[in-house]
Amino acid sequence: MRFEDLNWMDVENYLKQDDRLMIVLGACEQHAYLSLLTDVRIPQTIADAASKQTGVLIAPSVNFGVSPYFLQYPGTLSLRTSTLLQVMEDIIRSAAGVGFRRFLVLNGHGGNNGAADHLVEVANSLPHIKIAWYSWWESNSVAAVSMKHNLAIEHAGWAEAFSFTQVADLPSEPKLPVKVTGLSNAIETRRLYGDGMFGGPYQVGDEIMAEVFQAALDDVLHLLE
Amino acid sequence: MRFEDLNWMDVENYLKQDDRLMIVLGACEQHAYLSLLTDVRIPQTIADAASKQTGVLIAPSVNFGVSPYFLQYPGTLSLRTSTLLQVMEDIIRSAAGVGFRRFLVLNGHGGNNGAADHLVEVANSLPHIKIAWYSWWESNSVAAVSMKHNLAIEHAGWAEAFSFTQVADLPSEPKLPVKVTGLSNAIETRRLYGDGMFGGPYQVGDEIMAEVFQAALDDVLHLLE
Amino acid sequence: MRFEDLNWMDVENYLKQDDRLMIVLGACEQHAYLSLLTDVRIPQTIADAASKQTGVLIAPSVNFGVSPYFLQYPGTLSLRTSTLLQVMEDIIRSAAGVGFRRFLVLNGHGGNNGAADHLVEVANSLPHIKIAWYSWWESNSVAAVSMKHNLAIEHAGWAEAFSFTQVADLPSEPKLPVKVTGLSNAIETRRLYGDGMFGGPYQVGDEIMAEVFQAALDDVLHLLE
Amino acid sequence: MRFEDLNWMDVENYLKQDDRLMIVLGACEQHAYLSLLTDVRIPQTIADAASKQTGVLIAPSVNFGVSPYFLQYPGTLSLRTSTLLQVMEDIIRSAAGVGFRRFLVLNGHGGNNGAADHLVEVANSLPHIKIAWYSWWESNSVAAVSMKHNLAIEHAGWAEAFSFTQVADLPSEPKLPVKVTGLSNAIETRRLYGDGMFGGPYQVGDEIMAEVFQAALDDVLHLLE
Amino acid sequence: MRFEDLNWMDVENYLKQDDRLMIVLGACEQHAYLSLLTDVRIPQTIADAASKQTGVLIAPSVNFGVSPYFLQYPGTLSLRTSTLLQVMEDIIRSAAGVGFRRFLVLNGHGGNNGAADHLVEVANSLPHIKIAWYSWWESNSVAAVSMKHNLAIEHAGWAEAFSFTQVADLPSEPKLPVKVTGLSNAIETRRLYGDGMFGGPYQVGDEIMAEVFQAALDDVLHLLE
Amino acid sequence: MRFEDLNWMDVENYLKQDDRLMIVLGACEQHAYLSLLTDVRIPQTIADAASKQTGVLIAPSVNFGVSPYFLQYPGTLSLRTSTLLQVMEDIIRSAAGVGFRRFLVLNGHGGNNGAADHLVEVANSLPHIKIAWYSWWESNSVAAVSMKHNLAIEHAGWAEAFSFTQVADLPSEPKLPVKVTGLSNAIETRRLYGDGMFGGPYQVGDEIMAEVFQAALDDVLHLLE
Repeated sequence: MRFEDLNWMDVENYLKQDDRLMIVLGACEQHAYLSLLTDVRIPQTIADAASKQTGVLIAPSVNFGVSPYFLQYPGTLSLRTSTLLQVMEDIIRSAAGVGFRRFLVLNGHGGNNGAADHLVEVANSLPHIKIAWYSWWESNSVAAVSMKHNLAIEHAGWAEAFSFTQVADLPSEPKLPVKVTGLSNAIETRRLYGDGMFGGPYQVGDEIMAEVFQAALDDVLHLLE
Repeated sequence: MRFEDLNWMDVENYLKQDDRLMIVLGACEQHAYLSLLTDVRIPQTIADAASKQTGVLIAPSVNFGVSPYFLQYPGTLSLRTSTLLQVMEDIIRSAAGVGFRRFLVLNGHGGNNGAADHLVEVANSLPHIKIAWYSWWESNSVAAVSMKHNLAIEHAGWAEAFSFTQVADLPSEPKLPVKVTGLSNAIETRRLYGDGMFGGPYQVGDEIMAEVFQAALDDVLHLLE
Repeated sequence: MRFEDLNWMDVENYLKQDDRLMIVLGACEQHAYLSLLTDVRIPQTIADAASKQTGVLIAPSVNFGVSPYFLQYPGTLSLRTSTLLQVMEDIIRSAAGVGFRRFLVLNGHGGNNGAADHLVEVANSLPHIKIAWYSWWESNSVAAVSMKHNLAIEHAGWAEAFSFTQVADLPSEPKLPVKVTGLSNAIETRRLYGDGMFGGPYQVGDEIMAEVFQAALDDVLHLLE
Repeated sequence: MRFEDLNWMDVENYLKQDDRLMIVLGACEQHAYLSLLTDVRIPQTIADAASKQTGVLIAPSVNFGVSPYFLQYPGTLSLRTSTLLQVMEDIIRSAAGVGFRRFLVLNGHGGNNGAADHLVEVANSLPHIKIAWYSWWESNSVAAVSMKHNLAIEHAGWAEAFSFTQVADLPSEPKLPVKVTGLSNAIETRRLYGDGMFGGPYQVGDEIMAEVFQAALDDVLHLLE
Repeated sequence: MRFEDLNWMDVENYLKQDDRLMIVLGACEQHAYLSLLTDVRIPQTIADAASKQTGVLIAPSVNFGVSPYFLQYPGTLSLRTSTLLQVMEDIIRSAAGVGFRRFLVLNGHGGNNGAADHLVEVANSLPHIKIAWYSWWESNSVAAVSMKHNLAIEHAGWAEAFSFTQVADLPSEPKLPVKVTGLSNAIETRRLYGDGMFGGPYQVGDEIMAEVFQAALDDVLHLLE
Repeated sequence: MRFEDLNWMDVENYLKQDDRLMIVLGACEQHAYLSLLTDVRIPQTIADAASKQTGVLIAPSVNFGVSPYFLQYPGTLSLRTSTLLQVMEDIIRSAAGVGFRRFLVLNGHGGNNGAADHLVEVANSLPHIKIAWYSWWESNSVAAVSMKHNLAIEHAGWAEAFSFTQVADLPSEPKLPVKVTGLSNAIETRRLYGDGMFGGPYQVGDEIMAEVFQAALDDVLHLLE
């Protein structure tokens, strides 16, 4: 269940028997041919599935992340790192104040990882809470799927091309991986990456996508225990 | 159209012929029997309707606002004022950087109004942009509807009880308005307001709601011109 | 009594029998023909009158507020919203630390309202204090006076033209109200508003001004109880 | 002339022939038997005298400074250092934006000195402005007066006991200087300093005070050239 | 050459023919039996070796990083994430202001990675500079060494046990890897990790260490080109 | 002993019998012909000598300070004042969290003094700790040495020209003191000060330097008691 389908009395009742909360953290940024909200939709869909099985509540999605390198691609809306730290802290402090104790951040975007350490600082000041941070594409179980099929996970590539993130036709031919060193600024990044995909196939078969999704979902179910 | 249904190439094409953007700013807070995301759903629904008529794009919703007084109601997730200022600035600077010029913030929550002045500071530093800020329940046209029906607009009351914000049955009897002076802290606020509604009827007929919605939509269409 | 006429021992004695403090919050900004410190002088004069009747102490005035829209009018000195939040928090925390418990912020400027919610955040962390926020020109009692005389309250107009805010002769003819939508930046604002007054008469008779002042003073005396 | 006695048109006229501004920066803190606003009143009185001779305008006083060590003395209202930096930056950027070029900060309080370096950072970003910072009690000319009379300048002692800072009778006997090492917190500071004066005579003759005032005024007149 | 062995004239001369700068970013945190400054000493030693071959200058080391999880181990001195972002920005802006154009951050600590994205934001505002970020233990070339010897790289384990980071005898037996999920707070972290090492051998032979060092040095030399 | 030569177990053992910590705070800025890290090396050398006699531990040096006026001299790397406040707070809170109670900040740079008041704010929130702040060149004992030899202490002059801060030959002739009023920005500062020294002899005999060093060391030993 998502917060948006509940009122406060529902949450109060929930807290009488549970203290877990999933927080979907994404980004609004270029994903080549995929939806600008790919990084929200993937963890949101995983969260919905996990909630269905466990009943754990889902906070409203944080629809923006840290994407300064993509700011020359129209549609990217990037928070400064310092802003994201504050947003995540405010959400967790608000929820901890009424009794939530175990938090699982379902992160959809690599640029947000700097917020994880900040949440340790928050956890140091609220010693009764526990926070887990899960970035699905970095997990061992998803890596096992990609290795099994001899595929590498790259930004905006096959691994993010779920049915629910597609908003346009995808190229059928793979893209030569782009090799970059250094931290490119937004202008260089657009020049280097062109359509915004980082390399490899744009799409794979539905069965592989189902394997990826199941692997991530299993991780989340495990983390919720 | 919402960003989430587009990819960056779609936005780039849009910017060749338009430079307007609607930003839905809400809150995640107690609304008595209504959805915790009432303040998102109302401006989002208005924005969707306005977009359908005008084609103006809609950025992903900001799902959190400034609600410190409601922090003792489970489900309220409040940003500090300083956090919200940064979020709004980051979104507008990101969009202005790729060519958006005219912004309409569709605000669903009174506690967010402090961000409006901050956006003037942002506008001073980006003199080629224009920002409008619209809080539907404070508009003259919606006030005209409420006065016509001899109804006052109060938090979580009839004026927010659209079909799309209801997640539970609503009381049929009106509530005696609560009279408060001073800035109450979160504990006092919960004690004072009980179920969280501020007074008056919890619901009115669909025709009145349609009038309210149409009045706000007309305002937005006018502001988008 | 104002702090400036006291030493710390006087305040210590006061705190043995009272715990109330008035804080005058203003702005330094264009008020057309009126004093640049109009927004300080009005709440200060009300505070002085209220203190005379009640003995409640008055902190030194905050002489600057949030006025980004007026920055192209020479003499406007505007704090960023984030700065004002910090100033108000620091003052209240300092005073709460030595025993003040009940605060009444006498606000003279609309752009400062964003600080009110921040003070709720402060109050959440200091549960033994109470804060009231009073913006005289937004009060029901002052509205009753203006409605009785069929006058609208506009920036730098008749309602702020007390004897103690006048520093030059005032135009005798009213000004056609300026109609604006959107959040104008500082350059547009100056172009739109010319002399800086927003519309209506520049001045009215002394009896009306006395009514306005008395209405606000009565409000303050009531809030101090 | 002070801003409070002018409107924006007066300032605009002034800027056609001058670009100097005096900013009075004080503190609201214990000064033993003297006014809580001693650190405002002294630089304000100097500024008024200098303005009378030169016509240079005076911005509204900053009535609060950085006084964390005195927070256990009732009546002290202290800004955090970070807050003061922002306040001073905002004032100077506002004034520089409409044409002020040469700023003289008349500082009345030692705890504010950290803001001076921050103003250099501001000046680096606004290369057309010049800022001077004057702390009267640290000047060579005032030191010459105190040495001539074999007096040391200590907090809340004779050198601050002008007629216009006295709000109560002063002890006739000098106080044994308090010797302190380290940065004391507020509790220790109150224990160590008792009435808040740091040592030496509480008052001296009017002629010496006139010499001190004249020395500081001459400094300011020189800095304004 | 390090800045500390130069004066400003030396740097001015250097900038006539080069515009590269290495910045050593470390941490002061528990490393089990190894030096508290292990994360400084490793990148510093690599930088010194690279500078010897290339002549590229080295800025003074940033001796503190983001280590909130280790705050219950005495000797850990952790910056908040927000603080580190500011430190790195200030250093790079200072150096860019006098003509440095190509920066290589030699990072010794995983908790600092959040600063990398912030530097992209800085690079967006200074489009003439280029920044590279190198975390030696995450590089492909060092991974190749560890895989060749069938060793995993863990905090405070063999891969950090250079001669120049050892300050005490090391255990001869390997440690069973500790398995952790979630973001542990500082108290849990100490309980979980005991001596602070994360698992595997505490030390390996000098030849392997030389291979690791050479791999990292080669990377750095390549990045400096 | 310095932290870098210890591991966390050593610090834990130390804390069983002592709770003092020296923190070396410097700057990376132009010192004319002297090392860019002169302001680190002097307090570090004093700290090492004091530690040798007392066993008090030394935290890693803060290698950067607030030097905005010198930003046009290549090699100066300046923190904003606000950044330094955070760095110092983070270090002290980290150390206080594991049992350090008495802190001695050995400051090498005048521009850092604004951080001292911020540390009083920190101390107010951690009432069990004590902080001392020592700027060697401002001490009475060092002043006595300079007066005895009829020498004035100026930036980058003789008093900083220890054997361990020299990285180039020094001019044999003294420099005419530069007279400046106001807060100069970085461009003016470079124009005014040329080589960066502020006036007087560039060097004096070793015996005087030994006297200076001993005076400062004695101060530190006294403060550590």
